[in-house]
Amino acid sequence: MTWVTGAEGSAYGVRNLPYGVFRWGGDDPRVGVRIGDHVLDLAGAEAAGLVLAAGALGRPSLNAFLALGRPQWTAVRQRVTELLTDEVHRVAVEPLLVPLAEAELLLPFEVADYVDFYSSEHHAGNVGQIFRPGQPPLLPNWKHLPVGYHGRAGTVVVSGTPIVRPTGQRATPQGPVCGPSVRLDIEAEVGFVVGVPTTLGDRVAAADFADHVFGVVLVNDWSARDIQAWEYQPLGPFLGKSFATSVSAWVTPLDALADAFVPAPDQDPPVAEYLRDVPHAGLDLRLAVEWNGERVSEPPFATMYWTPAQQLAHLTVNGASLRTGDLYASGTVSGPERGQVGSFLELTWGGAEPVKVGGETRTFLEDGDTVTLTATAPGPDGTTVALGEVTGTIRPAR
Amino acid sequence: MTWVTGAEGSAYGVRNLPYGVFRWGGDDPRVGVRIGDHVLDLAGAEAAGLVLAAGALGRPSLNAFLALGRPQWTAVRQRVTELLTDEVHRVAVEPLLVPLAEAELLLPFEVADYVDFYSSEHHAGNVGQIFRPGQPPLLPNWKHLPVGYHGRAGTVVVSGTPIVRPTGQRATPQGPVCGPSVRLDIEAEVGFVVGVPTTLGDRVAAADFADHVFGVVLVNDWSARDIQAWEYQPLGPFLGKSFATSVSAWVTPLDALADAFVPAPDQDPPVAEYLRDVPHAGLDLRLAVEWNGERVSEPPFATMYWTPAQQLAHLTVNGASLRTGDLYASGTVSGPERGQVGSFLELTWGGAEPVKVGGETRTFLEDGDTVTLTATAPGPDGTTVALGEVTGTIRPAR
Repeated sequence: MTWVTGAEGSAYGVRNLPYGVFRWGGDDPRVGVRIGDHVLDLAGAEAAGLVLAAGALGRPSLNAFLALGRPQWTAVRQRVTELLTDEVHRVAVEPLLVPLAEAELLLPFEVADYVDFYSSEHHAGNVGQIFRPGQPPLLPNWKHLPVGYHGRAGTVVVSGTPIVRPTGQRATPQGPVCGPSVRLDIEAEVGFVVGVPTTLGDRVAAADFADHVFGVVLVNDWSARDIQAWEYQPLGPFLGKSFATSVSAWVTPLDALADAFVPAPDQDPPVAEYLRDVPHAGLDLRLAVEWNGERVSEPPFATMYWTPAQQLAHLTVNGASLRTGDLYASGTVSGPERGQVGSFLELTWGGAEPVKVGGETRTFLEDGDTVTLTATAPGPDGTTVALGEVTGTIRPAR
Repeated sequence: MTWVTGAEGSAYGVRNLPYGVFRWGGDDPRVGVRIGDHVLDLAGAEAAGLVLAAGALGRPSLNAFLALGRPQWTAVRQRVTELLTDEVHRVAVEPLLVPLAEAELLLPFEVADYVDFYSSEHHAGNVGQIFRPGQPPLLPNWKHLPVGYHGRAGTVVVSGTPIVRPTGQRATPQGPVCGPSVRLDIEAEVGFVVGVPTTLGDRVAAADFADHVFGVVLVNDWSARDIQAWEYQPLGPFLGKSFATSVSAWVTPLDALADAFVPAPDQDPPVAEYLRDVPHAGLDLRLAVEWNGERVSEPPFATMYWTPAQQLAHLTVNGASLRTGDLYASGTVSGPERGQVGSFLELTWGGAEPVKVGGETRTFLEDGDTVTLTATAPGPDGTTVALGEVTGTIRPAR
């Protein structure tokens, strides 16, 4: 039970407490925790001796805090929970609460490397049917390893950043042309934020997932399907993705999702030993996609074929090192139903089946369109934990 | 004419002056310039007021210096040239020369994003013939845009770093197996180091190449062909590359390569407007590949189909921003002859035609093998400019 006005019963209550970086008034950017409709200034709390975190909270990114590791992550969370629930701290802590509406939310961490997986069987199957009709929807490797690739870390932006429509080459029957993308799409994903690094040559066992991963963000991996389709052979997506990837301003700690772990789908054929994770657990995150304010899809993360622990084990099986701030995303989250897909490519079946959004017809994104991704997860005692939203509005090509 | 003993006539003479980061004695890592068999301590020179560079030279990476931009890059180079050629400076400067053999050379810059292109027509053609016999060797997009993808920035390592053989999945007739790579290869490439960043949504014109790119490194993009072949559909190379990418310890400024720019090969069909660069110039860099001390190939960079200016224009045409420390590599450099290829995949034609190296038979890399890439370029007045070498030795899988 928190003493913060309006926070009790909120999906941003004391069971949640996501971390972000914010600016308020004339102060330097600093780490904060969201509670209800407020941000607790953790830099101020650390400076006042209310929280101990090795000076990591007065920084303009979460990276120093992320590097501390799980025992410290848990200790800080416990202490913040105490501060926000025990009335004895109210006098000291209340002045450190900033109204959320007045805070400018910044990119919460410096992204080291960004990897994007492709781990929804339904999404991969849909894409296969749309692009390779009549052939097996999944490629031969898909059930043996979590397919993934590196994206552009430097263009990961915080929720709310306008998205300029990208320009690039696309194929036409008359040959390639260059111009603004005409098939601009979203990908609703969940991203995992690495805190504790490793040494080059080492691997991370799936069982050690929670020792390295601090928490999760929502991700919109904006995708220009026409640019992607022309460029991607044989080395994969490049400019069709690299113009922008939006992440939520709030990083939800794994500790807040303890009640959201659920058995992941069975895997057949059996996976290689390094990919066996016990418990084989996914996360019951319930995503929602809003297109110009209208909810068009509800992707269920629990249906993902590959788990985040398997993705981490795969990412490092070759000895690739992790750095603090590494971000790896799940790939588009799509469930088995049309109302559960995480991309408009799937929602409109390659553009062949337009949808009505707010009274207008849509296949792909028009200039001025806004897409907002949200998600909730089950918390303890019947509570709900909300992930930070990720939103973006399309600006015309320059 | 330099007063530094032994440097006159060297390929590391005053026409070269590449930048790196080194550690010597008990001093902190700092920026230095190579001259002959010495390193000029530029942090010391700046501290003594001999060079002005906004405090950028006392850092453990080149990034602050890279961010200064071309006017400052040129001014510092001119000043360093004065210091090393005018006898009047000898008394002050000579104590700042560290014997190269005593210096520990570090990764010269913090890599922001790492992009790898695929811009040799001969290499792409060879790979096409090896992997898709009987089909057109180049895919339809290849002559319309410089195909590229993002690699792992966090595993870019400096020359001399041991390379642990990666483990991963590969396909066999009995199904996929997981184990140490059995087709470990190299890719001899040239990398371009970005200094001046851009804003998200902006493009860089090909003509502005030298405003953003500071200089070049040699790159060995180690590649596990068996891992790559199994994983790469449909999203491109991932673990087959991400275990390590080696770069030279020395970054050669574009200013040192002014005499190496040569007309690039004609491009047919004509390229999109944003890819037209005038002058359409490549670089006459003459690479050499040494396998266990034996020179097995001499890849000519001047044969590359796409130029570095075109690569930069393509990388940003979609509005993707640049950061200081971005590295983009050319892709494997292969000329038209078997003795000019930049990978062992090509040298041994997919492993079908083993070669003799130092009396032993080789297809791919064995544990203990060492590969060293070197390169030279024409300098002014008949001189030669050497690029920093990049070397690595294979360690057994862990």
